[in-house]
Amino acid sequence: MRMVDIIEKKRDGQQLTKEEIRFVVDGYTNDTLPDYQMSAFLMAVYFQGMTAEETAELTLAMLDSGDQIDLANIHGIKVDKHSTGGVGDTTTLVLAPLVAAVGVPVAKMSGRGLGHTGGTLDKLESVPGFHVEITEEQFIELVNRNQVAVIGQSGNLTPADKKMYSLRDVTATVNSIPLIASSIMSKKMASGADAIVLDVKVGAGAFMKNIDDARKLADAMVEIGNQVGRNTLAVISDMNQPLGFAIGNALEVKEAIATLQGNGPDDLQELCLVLGSKMVLLAEKAKTEEEARTMLLQTMKDGTALSKFKEFLAAQGGDASVIDDMTKLPTAKYQIPVPAPSNGYVSEIIADEVGTAAMLLGAGRATKESTIDLSVGVVLHKKVGDAVNKDEPIATIHSNAENVEEVTKRIIDAYTFTDQQPEKKPIIYQ
Amino acid sequence: MRMVDIIEKKRDGQQLTKEEIRFVVDGYTNDTLPDYQMSAFLMAVYFQGMTAEETAELTLAMLDSGDQIDLANIHGIKVDKHSTGGVGDTTTLVLAPLVAAVGVPVAKMSGRGLGHTGGTLDKLESVPGFHVEITEEQFIELVNRNQVAVIGQSGNLTPADKKMYSLRDVTATVNSIPLIASSIMSKKMASGADAIVLDVKVGAGAFMKNIDDARKLADAMVEIGNQVGRNTLAVISDMNQPLGFAIGNALEVKEAIATLQGNGPDDLQELCLVLGSKMVLLAEKAKTEEEARTMLLQTMKDGTALSKFKEFLAAQGGDASVIDDMTKLPTAKYQIPVPAPSNGYVSEIIADEVGTAAMLLGAGRATKESTIDLSVGVVLHKKVGDAVNKDEPIATIHSNAENVEEVTKRIIDAYTFTDQQPEKKPIIYQ
Repeated sequence: MRMVDIIEKKRDGQQLTKEEIRFVVDGYTNDTLPDYQMSAFLMAVYFQGMTAEETAELTLAMLDSGDQIDLANIHGIKVDKHSTGGVGDTTTLVLAPLVAAVGVPVAKMSGRGLGHTGGTLDKLESVPGFHVEITEEQFIELVNRNQVAVIGQSGNLTPADKKMYSLRDVTATVNSIPLIASSIMSKKMASGADAIVLDVKVGAGAFMKNIDDARKLADAMVEIGNQVGRNTLAVISDMNQPLGFAIGNALEVKEAIATLQGNGPDDLQELCLVLGSKMVLLAEKAKTEEEARTMLLQTMKDGTALSKFKEFLAAQGGDASVIDDMTKLPTAKYQIPVPAPSNGYVSEIIADEVGTAAMLLGAGRATKESTIDLSVGVVLHKKVGDAVNKDEPIATIHSNAENVEEVTKRIIDAYTFTDQQPEKKPIIYQ
Repeated sequence: MRMVDIIEKKRDGQQLTKEEIRFVVDGYTNDTLPDYQMSAFLMAVYFQGMTAEETAELTLAMLDSGDQIDLANIHGIKVDKHSTGGVGDTTTLVLAPLVAAVGVPVAKMSGRGLGHTGGTLDKLESVPGFHVEITEEQFIELVNRNQVAVIGQSGNLTPADKKMYSLRDVTATVNSIPLIASSIMSKKMASGADAIVLDVKVGAGAFMKNIDDARKLADAMVEIGNQVGRNTLAVISDMNQPLGFAIGNALEVKEAIATLQGNGPDDLQELCLVLGSKMVLLAEKAKTEEEARTMLLQTMKDGTALSKFKEFLAAQGGDASVIDDMTKLPTAKYQIPVPAPSNGYVSEIIADEVGTAAMLLGAGRATKESTIDLSVGVVLHKKVGDAVNKDEPIATIHSNAENVEEVTKRIIDAYTFTDQQPEKKPIIYQ
């Protein structure tokens, strides 16, 4: 088998065999295929796409390229959730205790990652004492006892995907649906998920800029799930503005607490209920999504969702009293309002720009070496459809530096105002 | 400027600026751009093509990447000819003395190359004593005196093209018209041509398998010529069977001698007259192609074409008496006929297969280190349209080894026979 022939075959739009796909992935992982052949191959895939069978095989080959987490000792069906990026996405913090409260086992492996804010792990570390340095045995024991635990990423999961992603990033081959779909699905499978709920974001702040592409990506991932025997459901949700109000680590923890009490932002609560219902359904803890939704709403109302969050934090060393006294969470020195530049209605908030503003404050990592300031970030007060008067605060900057001129400018630039009230878009498209 | 942005721009079908194309070619030549970005870029070009302006700029950037031969001291308009590969292509050996005989200066830089037979240089070295180890001053002086001389390739011409070609070869990006066109044109320009005649081969034995692609390639090269101010004409010629009868080094020299006397194979003579007429026209030694053709035919008839060949060989140390006594040329030990497997008419001869047969005999180089046997090769007796009787020789193998079983099989396999006489195709399509 020669790589140049495989590139040519894909270039000409033919379907590759399983053996050919394995040859490419294995060869690239063990350094027998050079980067320059792989990047030509990836560009050919960009143009010619992949069939469902090819994409499934690519996923399995990447899965097999490294370690896989064994969660067999956890009782029940392990359902994992994945969102395709986005800004101010607090759903994981809410969903983990929410679905655990109705008996769905949540065995979450989480990383720190680069981005506008930290990863789920960083956010949770806003809670004093909370840590994820637990053994795999402790992790499994905790999930079996409390239905929820988080452990730091370990092992060498999907090294093929890591290597391919680095290459795609510098060769303009990131935006290919089969490549995105197989990358996400292989990682979820490697971290032990039996079933997967996908939240595909669409809009200016997301990977997928239009609904057609989002639908194609969702379909591709569900199809992979079908092909490899892992039940998979997908939701397409709006990212034409940041989700919820808070963008920042401790700020998002506060928002998650409010949401678990049923007092969160409408869009965040709705998305969590939709995703959560599908997780409950896949875990076979309810027969219909309606039933699941009722169960989840009940846990918000009767306080069991919040209790589950406390239990979870305490079990991993966290000071659960922060939930009743949120002043114990890291708090920035300055709270600086951002005034509306004019009268009107908010018609758009470019999520990326708000994210970058939070990052400038120190909420996220630009490189692996960056340190995060857990206390800082941005809280929005006005979202799409809201009326504003000139100089009324549209957002508050939480900062440890007094000079926030650039951040303020970015937030104002992220907003678009119109004279007429725009239609509100639904948070869930499909 | 970032390479990843340029790849993305081309991937999305946008036209690159001159600066962007220079950035790519210069960066790749001086090793600041890695192979893996270049190969992704080349694959994007494969799919999206290039405009005439982009292709011209790519040509100029590759031209400027290395040395250029300065032929300013040669009087007259230097016209060069290029054929896009093919099997048994003896045209250069014929054309050089033929057009020189009517006063067109032929300053030929020639290489050895890999392939079914040697390059023009190898073929000429069949003539005892002939050599190309002359200085640039001698070379220019010879062209000014005799109108024709050949020198070995020297200098670092179009290193960008060399590096890109090696990469294209292993990443399935060879067959892209703008890349082929710019590669050919930059090399011709670097070796000092003022005007260029192109012979684009089409057919099973050629780069371009169909007439549409051949026309696109021809158009692309003529367009580059227009854009960069070098008069360029193109001919599309048939390569659905080998050109002429001989495939092999000394065998092709013999065929060239016959052709210069007006006794060569019809197809070879016709192609040489068409290409030669265009060269004469571009060199402004005639006003019309018809006039040029008459002049060339006259030199064949009156012996001046052959005398020019003798003069040229002698001027570079060759034993010109071989022309009158061809037994002085290297001759293979065995002449072995290939019998027709059945009665019928020849309908096709796969040129590549016959070429490979010649190569197996030792006529060509598989790697740079291979040595060539100048005496061996294949001479065809039957071409497309000819009637054959079973066991009648369709070709003769000239070999220094007695066992030619595999070679014989390949030649027979290259032929297709039919019951009805097929139409003869013209040698010139356009």
